[in-house]
Amino acid sequence: MTGRAEFCELAVWRTANVGNKAVVLAPEIAVSRWFNTSEPLTLSGLRGRPVLLHAFQMLCPGCVAHGTPQTQRAFDLFKHSDLQVIGLHTVFEHHAAMTPVSLEAFIHEYRLTFPIGIDEAAEGMPMPITMGRYGMQGTPTSILIGRDGRVVHHGFGQQSDMALGAIIAAELAAAHE
Amino acid sequence: MTGRAEFCELAVWRTANVGNKAVVLAPEIAVSRWFNTSEPLTLSGLRGRPVLLHAFQMLCPGCVAHGTPQTQRAFDLFKHSDLQVIGLHTVFEHHAAMTPVSLEAFIHEYRLTFPIGIDEAAEGMPMPITMGRYGMQGTPTSILIGRDGRVVHHGFGQQSDMALGAIIAAELAAAHE
Amino acid sequence: MTGRAEFCELAVWRTANVGNKAVVLAPEIAVSRWFNTSEPLTLSGLRGRPVLLHAFQMLCPGCVAHGTPQTQRAFDLFKHSDLQVIGLHTVFEHHAAMTPVSLEAFIHEYRLTFPIGIDEAAEGMPMPITMGRYGMQGTPTSILIGRDGRVVHHGFGQQSDMALGAIIAAELAAAHE
Amino acid sequence: MTGRAEFCELAVWRTANVGNKAVVLAPEIAVSRWFNTSEPLTLSGLRGRPVLLHAFQMLCPGCVAHGTPQTQRAFDLFKHSDLQVIGLHTVFEHHAAMTPVSLEAFIHEYRLTFPIGIDEAAEGMPMPITMGRYGMQGTPTSILIGRDGRVVHHGFGQQSDMALGAIIAAELAAAHE
Repeated sequence: MTGRAEFCELAVWRTANVGNKAVVLAPEIAVSRWFNTSEPLTLSGLRGRPVLLHAFQMLCPGCVAHGTPQTQRAFDLFKHSDLQVIGLHTVFEHHAAMTPVSLEAFIHEYRLTFPIGIDEAAEGMPMPITMGRYGMQGTPTSILIGRDGRVVHHGFGQQSDMALGAIIAAELAAAHE
Repeated sequence: MTGRAEFCELAVWRTANVGNKAVVLAPEIAVSRWFNTSEPLTLSGLRGRPVLLHAFQMLCPGCVAHGTPQTQRAFDLFKHSDLQVIGLHTVFEHHAAMTPVSLEAFIHEYRLTFPIGIDEAAEGMPMPITMGRYGMQGTPTSILIGRDGRVVHHGFGQQSDMALGAIIAAELAAAHE
Repeated sequence: MTGRAEFCELAVWRTANVGNKAVVLAPEIAVSRWFNTSEPLTLSGLRGRPVLLHAFQMLCPGCVAHGTPQTQRAFDLFKHSDLQVIGLHTVFEHHAAMTPVSLEAFIHEYRLTFPIGIDEAAEGMPMPITMGRYGMQGTPTSILIGRDGRVVHHGFGQQSDMALGAIIAAELAAAHE
Repeated sequence: MTGRAEFCELAVWRTANVGNKAVVLAPEIAVSRWFNTSEPLTLSGLRGRPVLLHAFQMLCPGCVAHGTPQTQRAFDLFKHSDLQVIGLHTVFEHHAAMTPVSLEAFIHEYRLTFPIGIDEAAEGMPMPITMGRYGMQGTPTSILIGRDGRVVHHGFGQQSDMALGAIIAAELAAAHE
């Protein structure tokens, strides 16, 4: 996993000039199917807006108990801001158990209303593409991408509501460049 | 639904002589596949022992947050008694989303260790057979069957841990007849 | 503390003949003031009925978060049984901070409705009399006294609702002798 | 109460020029005794720094369950920022039950480490001085005072951790003027 993550970084972490400094951009997301949005979303299309990217699995107990409810709270709290919330179903185990049809029922039953994409499967690999690009350790993972496209925060496991609210608000307050 | 439940009662609720009085017996369970037990279980084979029958769906939020953890606590607390705990996966909606392979992953991820059966599908009906026989209103439902085979308690929705503990203990204390 | 507890046992744990066997009786409670009851309560006056004795301090965080709410739940759940619930304010620290007037406001604000007695202060000792007689380790402590006057359960710290419900129900089911 | 609050506003809400606009300043706090700080704190002395002012009563169940733990979390989370957290014990009922000695034990038992002041009693009035100046409706109340001395947020009752974190972070990000 370590080797692969390093390779991924070489391949996908690009730099860009933001203002007058070079920054390492968060890798693009790869999504095979979307829920709760009529238009596919891309990080490049969202540049200039902060993005909360929440990676989860519908059969991950910590995701169901903490991760997705917290992400829904963030979606509701910041809905009048220009934060974009994106859920990412990053299936890296029990693939036959967490199919798109199962995910769709999960989203319906748990009343999740933020846009959710299925992380695109990587051929011959258990871990899907976006998960690999970011070197995620597992689920739940919450990543905040700043207005300038950098990863501002990458948190694995249960996050504090207060800290997440603060990190998002600080980024929302950052000047548009 | 009302008509069907009445019909089911006519068909499946049998009486038996226990001691010297006639009692209405809880209907037999119909299970198409078992997890966490090497032998299929039947209520008739368990007569004389109290049985906690917990009906749930793996994508029912109240089941995941309250019902199955409570049933696991009952299984752990009363493991040295002769109580038999049985989980019953009663899928009455989102059938394609809650398949046996999905349930198996759910049981693994949530570390459920009590015997769980899949309620047998009723041909052409959304509600499975055992669920219909008991006239259940939905999930989660916790049913306690007494030593004499009667339904002692039928609770729909979130149950109090203290009340459930008390009901089980009272039945365990009932004399073997 | 060990020596004292042993002495207390010698002094206060009496035996009685219940049915045809000798049992060690729970020591009597010593109460200097009662709330939520018009009549003082004594264990000897309650013999034949199970008694849940809950020792707490109003400034003990575990008591406020878990102990007294659980005791209130037991009082409400078993109110149609012959269980007697008794709260005991066993102040063994911060004596000037947990006076009767403070306790009265606490009972009012937390809407506790079960009978509560103030454990009688022992002259020159930080630990009050009943607490010493039972050799309690601290608060919260939940003690169940059976119909025959014996201590059936003595639990220090957070108790499981399900286990407490079961222990009480088992004692309620015990034959009156 | 309405009339009094209006009078208070007339008396205590002062204006000041911040940058080049006039702002209504949060009224000064009146504290009769401090805990967890070697120096008395004043809003005027803290001007330029955001201040989280949390009003509570030690026998208010919502304060104990939600308010003071949340304030402690804010104190811990933002300790490397220039946010000043201040707890204010605003006793407006059960005065004899919530004395300074009781509060001191409460602070010790609940391990509160942020500075806490006792809101100064108003002669002949149940409500203490600062509480009246701010027109608080009860406890818990969380007030955020901005760098420029204005009240940025005044929330009565249970507050969301995420929202509070966001409000504080937004104020921390505000330019020093």
